[in-house]
Amino acid sequence: GLIKFDRDREDRTGFPEAVYSSGKDYEDLIIIANNYFKSVKPNEKSSLLFTRLSKSRFESLNDDLSDLKEKGFNLDYNPKAKILRINNYPLKDKINPDYGKIGILTAGTSDIPVAEEAKIVIQEGGCEVISSYDVGVAGIHRLLPQISKMVKDKVNCIIACAGMEGALPSVVAGLVDVPVIAVPTSIGYGVSDNGKTALFAMLQSCAPGIAVVNIDNGFGAGVLALTIVKNH
Amino acid sequence: GLIKFDRDREDRTGFPEAVYSSGKDYEDLIIIANNYFKSVKPNEKSSLLFTRLSKSRFESLNDDLSDLKEKGFNLDYNPKAKILRINNYPLKDKINPDYGKIGILTAGTSDIPVAEEAKIVIQEGGCEVISSYDVGVAGIHRLLPQISKMVKDKVNCIIACAGMEGALPSVVAGLVDVPVIAVPTSIGYGVSDNGKTALFAMLQSCAPGIAVVNIDNGFGAGVLALTIVKNH
Amino acid sequence: GLIKFDRDREDRTGFPEAVYSSGKDYEDLIIIANNYFKSVKPNEKSSLLFTRLSKSRFESLNDDLSDLKEKGFNLDYNPKAKILRINNYPLKDKINPDYGKIGILTAGTSDIPVAEEAKIVIQEGGCEVISSYDVGVAGIHRLLPQISKMVKDKVNCIIACAGMEGALPSVVAGLVDVPVIAVPTSIGYGVSDNGKTALFAMLQSCAPGIAVVNIDNGFGAGVLALTIVKNH
Amino acid sequence: GLIKFDRDREDRTGFPEAVYSSGKDYEDLIIIANNYFKSVKPNEKSSLLFTRLSKSRFESLNDDLSDLKEKGFNLDYNPKAKILRINNYPLKDKINPDYGKIGILTAGTSDIPVAEEAKIVIQEGGCEVISSYDVGVAGIHRLLPQISKMVKDKVNCIIACAGMEGALPSVVAGLVDVPVIAVPTSIGYGVSDNGKTALFAMLQSCAPGIAVVNIDNGFGAGVLALTIVKNH
Amino acid sequence: GLIKFDRDREDRTGFPEAVYSSGKDYEDLIIIANNYFKSVKPNEKSSLLFTRLSKSRFESLNDDLSDLKEKGFNLDYNPKAKILRINNYPLKDKINPDYGKIGILTAGTSDIPVAEEAKIVIQEGGCEVISSYDVGVAGIHRLLPQISKMVKDKVNCIIACAGMEGALPSVVAGLVDVPVIAVPTSIGYGVSDNGKTALFAMLQSCAPGIAVVNIDNGFGAGVLALTIVKNH
Amino acid sequence: GLIKFDRDREDRTGFPEAVYSSGKDYEDLIIIANNYFKSVKPNEKSSLLFTRLSKSRFESLNDDLSDLKEKGFNLDYNPKAKILRINNYPLKDKINPDYGKIGILTAGTSDIPVAEEAKIVIQEGGCEVISSYDVGVAGIHRLLPQISKMVKDKVNCIIACAGMEGALPSVVAGLVDVPVIAVPTSIGYGVSDNGKTALFAMLQSCAPGIAVVNIDNGFGAGVLALTIVKNH
Amino acid sequence: GLIKFDRDREDRTGFPEAVYSSGKDYEDLIIIANNYFKSVKPNEKSSLLFTRLSKSRFESLNDDLSDLKEKGFNLDYNPKAKILRINNYPLKDKINPDYGKIGILTAGTSDIPVAEEAKIVIQEGGCEVISSYDVGVAGIHRLLPQISKMVKDKVNCIIACAGMEGALPSVVAGLVDVPVIAVPTSIGYGVSDNGKTALFAMLQSCAPGIAVVNIDNGFGAGVLALTIVKNH
Amino acid sequence: GLIKFDRDREDRTGFPEAVYSSGKDYEDLIIIANNYFKSVKPNEKSSLLFTRLSKSRFESLNDDLSDLKEKGFNLDYNPKAKILRINNYPLKDKINPDYGKIGILTAGTSDIPVAEEAKIVIQEGGCEVISSYDVGVAGIHRLLPQISKMVKDKVNCIIACAGMEGALPSVVAGLVDVPVIAVPTSIGYGVSDNGKTALFAMLQSCAPGIAVVNIDNGFGAGVLALTIVKNH
Ligand SMILES: Nc1ncnc2c1ncn2[C@@H]1O[C@H](COP(=O)(O)O)[C@@H](O)[C@H]1O
Ligand SMILES: Nc1ncnc2c1ncn2[C@@H]1O[C@H](COP(=O)(O)O)[C@@H](O)[C@H]1O
Ligand SMILES: Nc1ncnc2c1ncn2[C@@H]1O[C@H](COP(=O)(O)O)[C@@H](O)[C@H]1O
Ligand SMILES: Nc1ncnc2c1ncn2[C@@H]1O[C@H](COP(=O)(O)O)[C@@H](O)[C@H]1O
Ligand SMILES: [Mg+2]
Ligand SMILES: [Mg+2]
Ligand SMILES: [Mg+2]
Ligand SMILES: [Mg+2]
Ligand SMILES: [Mg+2]
Ligand SMILES: [Mg+2]
Ligand SMILES: [Mg+2]
Ligand SMILES: [Mg+2]
Repeated sequence: GLIKFDRDREDRTGFPEAVYSSGKDYEDLIIIANNYFKSVKPNEKSSLLFTRLSKSRFESLNDDLSDLKEKGFNLDYNPKAKILRINNYPLKDKINPDYGKIGILTAGTSDIPVAEEAKIVIQEGGCEVISSYDVGVAGIHRLLPQISKMVKDKVNCIIACAGMEGALPSVVAGLVDVPVIAVPTSIGYGVSDNGKTALFAMLQSCAPGIAVVNIDNGFGAGVLALTIVKNH
Repeated sequence: GLIKFDRDREDRTGFPEAVYSSGKDYEDLIIIANNYFKSVKPNEKSSLLFTRLSKSRFESLNDDLSDLKEKGFNLDYNPKAKILRINNYPLKDKINPDYGKIGILTAGTSDIPVAEEAKIVIQEGGCEVISSYDVGVAGIHRLLPQISKMVKDKVNCIIACAGMEGALPSVVAGLVDVPVIAVPTSIGYGVSDNGKTALFAMLQSCAPGIAVVNIDNGFGAGVLALTIVKNH
Repeated sequence: GLIKFDRDREDRTGFPEAVYSSGKDYEDLIIIANNYFKSVKPNEKSSLLFTRLSKSRFESLNDDLSDLKEKGFNLDYNPKAKILRINNYPLKDKINPDYGKIGILTAGTSDIPVAEEAKIVIQEGGCEVISSYDVGVAGIHRLLPQISKMVKDKVNCIIACAGMEGALPSVVAGLVDVPVIAVPTSIGYGVSDNGKTALFAMLQSCAPGIAVVNIDNGFGAGVLALTIVKNH
Repeated sequence: GLIKFDRDREDRTGFPEAVYSSGKDYEDLIIIANNYFKSVKPNEKSSLLFTRLSKSRFESLNDDLSDLKEKGFNLDYNPKAKILRINNYPLKDKINPDYGKIGILTAGTSDIPVAEEAKIVIQEGGCEVISSYDVGVAGIHRLLPQISKMVKDKVNCIIACAGMEGALPSVVAGLVDVPVIAVPTSIGYGVSDNGKTALFAMLQSCAPGIAVVNIDNGFGAGVLALTIVKNH
Repeated sequence: GLIKFDRDREDRTGFPEAVYSSGKDYEDLIIIANNYFKSVKPNEKSSLLFTRLSKSRFESLNDDLSDLKEKGFNLDYNPKAKILRINNYPLKDKINPDYGKIGILTAGTSDIPVAEEAKIVIQEGGCEVISSYDVGVAGIHRLLPQISKMVKDKVNCIIACAGMEGALPSVVAGLVDVPVIAVPTSIGYGVSDNGKTALFAMLQSCAPGIAVVNIDNGFGAGVLALTIVKNH
Repeated sequence: GLIKFDRDREDRTGFPEAVYSSGKDYEDLIIIANNYFKSVKPNEKSSLLFTRLSKSRFESLNDDLSDLKEKGFNLDYNPKAKILRINNYPLKDKINPDYGKIGILTAGTSDIPVAEEAKIVIQEGGCEVISSYDVGVAGIHRLLPQISKMVKDKVNCIIACAGMEGALPSVVAGLVDVPVIAVPTSIGYGVSDNGKTALFAMLQSCAPGIAVVNIDNGFGAGVLALTIVKNH
Repeated sequence: GLIKFDRDREDRTGFPEAVYSSGKDYEDLIIIANNYFKSVKPNEKSSLLFTRLSKSRFESLNDDLSDLKEKGFNLDYNPKAKILRINNYPLKDKINPDYGKIGILTAGTSDIPVAEEAKIVIQEGGCEVISSYDVGVAGIHRLLPQISKMVKDKVNCIIACAGMEGALPSVVAGLVDVPVIAVPTSIGYGVSDNGKTALFAMLQSCAPGIAVVNIDNGFGAGVLALTIVKNH
Repeated sequence: GLIKFDRDREDRTGFPEAVYSSGKDYEDLIIIANNYFKSVKPNEKSSLLFTRLSKSRFESLNDDLSDLKEKGFNLDYNPKAKILRINNYPLKDKINPDYGKIGILTAGTSDIPVAEEAKIVIQEGGCEVISSYDVGVAGIHRLLPQISKMVKDKVNCIIACAGMEGALPSVVAGLVDVPVIAVPTSIGYGVSDNGKTALFAMLQSCAPGIAVVNIDNGFGAGVLALTIVKNH
């Protein structure tokens, strides 16, 4: 086969293989899904994520993977996050309260899909998520109470997603003492440069202690947050 | 002569010709200064600004323009702003309380030279300046009281200078109802891209009502502020 | 709800919340519109703008927001500006002659949509607009009389929109003494770089006193103009 | 004074104010140092870092801050890291074994200064450092044993610095399960683009769970590592 | 005719004219195909490649070139490589064992189309190909055995294709002593910059002896590999 | 020798070899000068230009080329243009009134060096030059009379040099019917991007019929102007 | 009306108003066409060009402008050039042998549309065109005879269009003594950067005397060529 | 020690460790040199290259490495190539005629240093070099005979270095059938972008079979050429 699975990954990193679907042929997605679950033993819990999967491709998979469904697998699709989770057990079974909590913020409503991608990855990794969306620095009076609340809820890490307000992570990191993960989004127009302005603003923040990931990379932010909280 | 003065400018815009010194030959600076004041009538008040003038070039001019000094002209050099003001009357004589007040903020201490350039231009234009430096958004608890104070002092316009915290004007504009002029500075390293990241962050701010000028352009920000407050 | 309204904005800035529609899910637009007017009291005047709304999405909203129409709200769509105004009173009722007049120029015909976006925002803010389109610096003989006319009409601020002739604001600012707001547009090809060449040409203009906003940001230019003229 | 200290920072983040010296006037550095220690009480332990300080400026400070030395303060300068530490107690007194250990790797010998900047910041924050320099991915046989060793030494976080081999953090993150912090350096020529190629290569790594900071930002990497390990 | 064939090319370089189809009018493709084979003598072996040809355009050509098919020509289309080969003899007849073998690697599954483009060009040039796909540096344990195998198979040159892991050729070149050809692909998002990040990472590799070609240029990589192995 | 002269160039293009001095070793400059004039026959008129030659390098050459001076050659150095002309006859002997006249404009005083480079090249080519410097579009009332004058003087081609006012050639080309050559200069700061903003603004001008050359390339503009007027 | 015609243009520059259709509303195109010919007197020859007009928009105009056709106007559409010529007399009637001849070259077949745009503009301006397409520098043996032929045909100016071989104008200018106009095209992929690589390669050519225009700007190249040859 | 030698490299790649001196501390260079030769056995031939070493640093090393000189080592410095070769045997002893010959071309005289860097590396690797400098495509009549000569001399590979004429490798590759290695140089100004324009022009060449290396990377080109010819 053309695709080589990294089955040790879950042991090493705490969450299963995630297939980056964008740009893959549809036929290859079907092969990947079928091959992945071929060797699952009876009663073994198993799941696989397809990220960046459009709604229409999900709908086709939903038809074409009926064999898997007959074997007891569910196809849970989150249209905001554009993630398909194929699994034989519910996501909530994974949550482990020992891992603590992770907070997720967005500057605008258009940044929500990236935040949702991170949320599902974190839940798949067994950690609880607290989120607050559409709190930008241009309206600082809306932002401050949300951060206070997260501090009171004792989050162990905060993910801040923003496309047009790259300063959100700076303001947050100036107020909390847990690690802050900044996710630039490709939202905006003109000089937003598909997210590069937000990315650069985040990287050159004056508030030290900020971790940055690639533009729109909710997936990477989620995995990083898990790696941080699991290393307690 | 090679240089053509724009003597109508002061009438049109409220401040005198300002010579952009950087990149001009030293000999040309001397010619410009001498020509400019040649036609000044006895008792006529007159002044000329040289911007972007290094300290060492000022010191040479101070020697080589002794003729002008004998004719009653002063050479006032501001080393932070890098502006030389040649004049036969003090700057404070120009201040006209009817123009109101203009506030100037900087995010860090390294942004101060740009702010000082704006300050001198505004004072030359006859307007009072209130300034507060080194108030960044990463320490929001330091910023909010400064803005409150400016609002209480009834400034008619605020200039915000920042290199590493392009969000400063956004936060300010979200809190006041006067025009905010954003001046990106070339302070920073790595992805700061000599000020482009700050510039772009300011241009794509979600807080509408922000006017942006070129990187390090304290001069332009000052003139714009004057144009705004004089059009009351 | 995912979206947080900024209802204080109108008090602070003189015009209502404007929803940036591009990139939002259609379902969210409906929720926003319905929620926004839920708490409007009988006989209270209220309006909401949706910017960057395509014609086809407007047509769907026109069907799906029939409830609002029954409650007496109108859906006025301007296809050049791509703005939908939902309201229970006509735009002309807002005009307040005390605010003065704002002039709007475009270099070419293709820059008109950006100018129209600014125009509607300014009218929503209560200010009169005088416009003159397709006057580029390459045909200086067409431009000069238009500017003379605006000066005679005593505009308090001029907005100049241009994609392929970034020098338009420079030429204008050299001739008038009111603030000039430059709006680069993404019109052009090759080295126009989707508006960045116009943006940069405007920012580095030799004529000081020019305020620049993001590429295609007619909205921001309108709000800035309002903030300037209302601070008289 | 022009400079506003953030004295709460140490409480919030676990390390003292660090002055970014590059681009500040020499006179301001002296004022900052003197003001900072003015209010230190007898027997109170206190320290201050000046980062990005050239050797020649250090030598001048060493002469001009003799007053501080008389009061019992030491000026420890690390020429690779370009950090001056002014303090009245040795760095090793700060190390707290509870915080665990942080590993630091560099791809080449030219990346060492950035690594050393991180090292001093981490030690100032009280954490032990294990380092291994000049291990690039182009010689994978040199890299693998170094990573094995760090895993055996139970580091809680790894910082990987590289200018010409942006893949170093990817390879490392594929082999360990602790958070990996990637620091691009400005080492290289031609398309290295002063570190942007390394930065982008690190951000788009296929190995998820990598935190990235600004180019040459050893300081930020050190603070981020401290924030992560202290949140155990 | 508008198009000028380079019929000497095959003699000089060992493979036939290849038409870059993308951006050419469909009508021109038909003219090219018909003209090319017009002068082929009976029993003369002849072939022509159309690269970057979409599946739908191939299907149209398949109908519209029925004349050629009647004259004994086959239209072999490889949908991954997007290459159409029109010919009157099978590809395998070209393979000449004297040329040795060329290895092809990809970092991810999405890089496979570029690898396949190279493969067909090399086979057309008469050389055997050994390939191994989806072996990235982030999972070094999957990569090392693949390289060992190629070394044992005595490949004379290795082509490494990667979009998100620009370091793949560096790692390979550090382990083998045959020339390594690096092909950046446009796979990725955010800072991948359509392949420029991979391209630059490959060019600035510390492992010397790497030849780089344009982004997605599987064709050029294949021709270069042939030129190298044929010059034994 | 390392350097290959192109002695046919003067016949083909109407002006002699010009050595681009910047970046060449000083020793090579001496060799070039001596070799060039070695084969000049008694009474043969000959000249050679060194462009981009710093004043200090000229002064050294003036000493080290005393042999040439003894053979009757002059070393004429223009410090604004940074051109050294080595010759055995005066520049004015070259002027041929049949070639017509070429006009040269600059937007600011800082653009003059580029204009002077063009001027000397044109005179070397035998054509008369009319120049007017420091006429920018921001002060259109200064520009229009200068252009009128050039039209009355019947120039056959106009060269317009500008760094901060890329629109100068557009305005000029809108008013005259001779070819306009636009020369962007690297004057400016911030978004001027070392001349790229002026270059791009000139290239995308709405006034067709403008020829553009490289940033600061007064040399190329001069040669192009000569090629145009000599092809009458 | 929104659009202001520049009816003096033909007198000034020798060819009529050309409407840049791309990005204009279809309705505006109809208005422009009808308005333009409204004031044409009986028997007056008149024509108007629409550039960058897609085939489908032409077909609609062909239907919707039937009124013009009834008044004796023809709609001649060139699908390669994407130019519509509305006129009441044939193009060949314009050719004036006194203007001489202009040569047009392209590097590849994909550059032909740009060349055709230039060709029609030149013919509209009354000048004869000689063209030779698909002659790239990579096959120098095909290029040299074409240039010889143009020299023998005594062309007065050569236009060279190329996307992937920016060196074409350099090679040509090294061989001829007439002005060479270089037109970069957006053909290519990867680092071609939509024509910027060709543009920059042309601008920095070592062969002086080359005039460059914007990417894909066949129109501007045509007008420039006319301006040059008409100024004989 | 901070530096880790890669002593197996010579066996793997055919030439010794080369130290990239630029950016390394002077003290580290001394340590590297001394350590490297510490373990050399009596009569064992050994050499080490320092690349990118300035003349003044060489002169200091020449003094400070007198111990090595006493042990029989020579310090051979090539000032064009900026390479120091420390060795106990002459370079010519390495040449092995079996490896064939490698040709080196430059477009201009300023590209020679890059060519010389490649030359020394190749000679160190045991291969003969034939070079021809200052042959640009703008003077094609100078270039063609040089290439003919190299073909007659039966070179096995050609290296073409160019900054302002990125097309040189294309023209060469169109005429020969051996691999062509293109080395962009940082020579030029304005849009040359420190070599990126040449780099991109080389990468997108229409002549397939060209291998490209980093800007100014004569070193890498030399190693690549060796790898190619040694794999015969
Ligand atoms: N949305 C995403 N963004 C970034 N990386 C991803 C994403 N989804 C999956 N990945 C990673 O990319 C790798 C991809 O590969 P593949 O499916 O082999 O192309 C996976 O193993 C994940 O670690
Ligand atoms: N066309 C526009 N361009 C720029 N900003 C806009 C535009 N339309 C609305 N906005 C602003 O963007 C804010 C946006 O956001 P949102 O919460 O995403 O609806 C609004 O409060 C407006 O101030
Ligand atoms: N200032 C200049 N700008 C651009 N090209 C120049 C300049 N001076 C000389 N040249 C051209 O560059 C060529 C250069 O080369 P060379 O001296 O061989 O490096 C000369 O033949 C001139 O055509
Ligand atoms: N001038 C050069 N350009 C590119 N690579 C070089 C150069 N000189 C040395 N190298 C390579 O860079 C590696 C560098 O390393 P280091 O001395 O460890 O920083 C060496 O092993 C060489 O392979
Ligand atoms: Mg919002
Ligand atoms: Mg500060
Ligand atoms: Mg127009
Ligand atoms: Mg090393
Ligand atoms: Mg994979
Ligand atoms: Mg001036
Ligand atoms: Mg072709
Ligand atoms: Mg030369």
